[in-house]
Amino acid sequence: MNTQTIITALNAVRAQKPLVLNITNYVVMNNTANGLLAVGASPIMAHSRDELAEMMAFSGALVINIGTLDSVWIERMMFAVEQANRHHKPVVLDPVGCGASSLRTETSRRIAEAAEQLILRGNASEIIALAGAGANAQAKSKGVDALDASEAAVGAARYLVRHYGCSVVISGETDFIVTDNGEIRLNNGHAMMPFVTGMGCTLSALTGAFAAVGETTGLAAAAVLGVAGEIAAEQSAGPGSLQLNLLDALYCLDAETLMQRLKLTSSS
Amino acid sequence: MNTQTIITALNAVRAQKPLVLNITNYVVMNNTANGLLAVGASPIMAHSRDELAEMMAFSGALVINIGTLDSVWIERMMFAVEQANRHHKPVVLDPVGCGASSLRTETSRRIAEAAEQLILRGNASEIIALAGAGANAQAKSKGVDALDASEAAVGAARYLVRHYGCSVVISGETDFIVTDNGEIRLNNGHAMMPFVTGMGCTLSALTGAFAAVGETTGLAAAAVLGVAGEIAAEQSAGPGSLQLNLLDALYCLDAETLMQRLKLTSSS
Amino acid sequence: MNTQTIITALNAVRAQKPLVLNITNYVVMNNTANGLLAVGASPIMAHSRDELAEMMAFSGALVINIGTLDSVWIERMMFAVEQANRHHKPVVLDPVGCGASSLRTETSRRIAEAAEQLILRGNASEIIALAGAGANAQAKSKGVDALDASEAAVGAARYLVRHYGCSVVISGETDFIVTDNGEIRLNNGHAMMPFVTGMGCTLSALTGAFAAVGETTGLAAAAVLGVAGEIAAEQSAGPGSLQLNLLDALYCLDAETLMQRLKLTSSS
Repeated sequence: MNTQTIITALNAVRAQKPLVLNITNYVVMNNTANGLLAVGASPIMAHSRDELAEMMAFSGALVINIGTLDSVWIERMMFAVEQANRHHKPVVLDPVGCGASSLRTETSRRIAEAAEQLILRGNASEIIALAGAGANAQAKSKGVDALDASEAAVGAARYLVRHYGCSVVISGETDFIVTDNGEIRLNNGHAMMPFVTGMGCTLSALTGAFAAVGETTGLAAAAVLGVAGEIAAEQSAGPGSLQLNLLDALYCLDAETLMQRLKLTSSS
Repeated sequence: MNTQTIITALNAVRAQKPLVLNITNYVVMNNTANGLLAVGASPIMAHSRDELAEMMAFSGALVINIGTLDSVWIERMMFAVEQANRHHKPVVLDPVGCGASSLRTETSRRIAEAAEQLILRGNASEIIALAGAGANAQAKSKGVDALDASEAAVGAARYLVRHYGCSVVISGETDFIVTDNGEIRLNNGHAMMPFVTGMGCTLSALTGAFAAVGETTGLAAAAVLGVAGEIAAEQSAGPGSLQLNLLDALYCLDAETLMQRLKLTSSS
Repeated sequence: MNTQTIITALNAVRAQKPLVLNITNYVVMNNTANGLLAVGASPIMAHSRDELAEMMAFSGALVINIGTLDSVWIERMMFAVEQANRHHKPVVLDPVGCGASSLRTETSRRIAEAAEQLILRGNASEIIALAGAGANAQAKSKGVDALDASEAAVGAARYLVRHYGCSVVISGETDFIVTDNGEIRLNNGHAMMPFVTGMGCTLSALTGAFAAVGETTGLAAAAVLGVAGEIAAEQSAGPGSLQLNLLDALYCLDAETLMQRLKLTSSS
């Protein structure tokens, strides 16, 4: 059933070519734009207050990525979230480096608080840092020392799902998609993927493309990127090749390959 | 005759390695710099008022691209155009997203108005939006409903040529080079090219390189990128490969291949 | 002996995965991050005063690259250097375009003056411009007309080594590593490398990775990039392929290949 949802969503992205408005970091602007194009969506990279209101009106989703943050960009991000709310559009937040500085932790929480239709996409440590003390209190009651990093992150994600009314995608060796309806585990992807900068940022951008066509759990993007990434890695001598083979694999991915390769398990 | 002009211009770029000063968007800075290097030119990316005057003095052309615009960048762009005028250097304007926000439409017009030696490079909708009401009035008198998108864009370009005293390159499935001397149609390129972000931005950057050696119509850049793009696409499984094969093809392109592949038609 | 130092340093980078904090230019942020990942290090790109103090505390080195400079970025750079000094971390300065504008020359000198543990990495003209009149005075006393560009650059580097108490890497067809202990010449690399934008910036970033594990001369980074670059170029039809093959070669480089290919000569 999940598999069919993913295929339907991929077909919808390719048919509708949704506009995805990205306020993202300098490092990955080029490859996230290329990732969106390769999957069939239409990227817009814009950040000026003088045009965000106009552009959000005709965009299908907003993706906020805090990878290269400063006070000027924070105000742009907050304004963009207001506009997304005004037009009832989903907001994907990628809290890059959340926990590595108080600026990032606090900004991530401000944005998450502000967005009315929120999807969070981060790695385990970012999700744990974003949840912070609230999730820790809960984890402790279960005996935190017994938890491995993934379990701790899923616990944090459950807290975030309740606290913000959002979906959470934790990406890593195993991806976890955490929603009100429980968790889905995804075991696609490849160990070489973390050697390409911004792979998580690409996942967040694709999550925006799928949200724009109504798939707001984050599952379809994680599945498509995981499968395309493992196809690409199998053809690659190193991370340079992987970066380009990934775009080719996203562009060429068909339903049959996706079905054959998907490694999904649900627990609700 | 046009073919010989293009080959002469390509040889001149490779021999003179002109410095091209780019004020462009964050998304494409890397690949436009690589595009300029691959064709034989020398990119400079600089934007500070504290050095633009000095740098414009020894650069051969200025390329302004409004892809990621804000009020700070607009002032830099206007100052750079002043410096280009002062040194009698050509200015290529890429009005990215013109029509998608009033900020972009107005800024494009300000820059076009200011530049004394102007070449415009955009897609059909950007050129139509830039021309705006002036061109519409003219088109209506010819019965606008009868026009397809390309004809509307060529009509808009003719208006812009007269209004700004510029050349206009409309890129798309067919490229149109519109000047005082009429139009040239170019049917090179490949359907996969729009799946790579910033392909039009690369064309604008190359247009600057050719303008710096005296080819100020925009034809040579469109021809070289169109032919290199189709060679690259024929070797590519998807847009990731295309992006890198394009740089290889620009670097390797020789006069014979260019002559064999060019699909030009003039109407003056 | 130098060869063993280089291999030891490469193994240390791969084992320790040092965090390298980069304040660099918009053009190369993506490929320098990918270069750092491919060699085994961990890139951080951050620039806000609100988090640089925190982040410098747990980073192993600071890399400052002035490629796209303005007054806002200069203050960020100076603040980051203060933080690096406070935590006794090495600072790599890449004075991109030093000599092409007075802004760049003056800013390079301000940063070089401020950094307590400094490594400079530039091309011959940047190093000569950075040294300026001080080195010229010395060169003149030896008869400057007799010097070729490399010799002039090495003379400038010797002046900088004394003046700032730093190491200097001059990259070019032959790389020169100039320290208190004399010079090392490195004859690796490939003539196609300058056709990829930011190759020198990648070298500066790698220099930061090696400095973070205690190799503060700049030699190991120049050797690793030179050898990986020539392996990559031999497999590449043009600069597009070279950019990605370089990342693959950095990722795959082993001690045996490095030893076989290294072309080092010392003169102390």
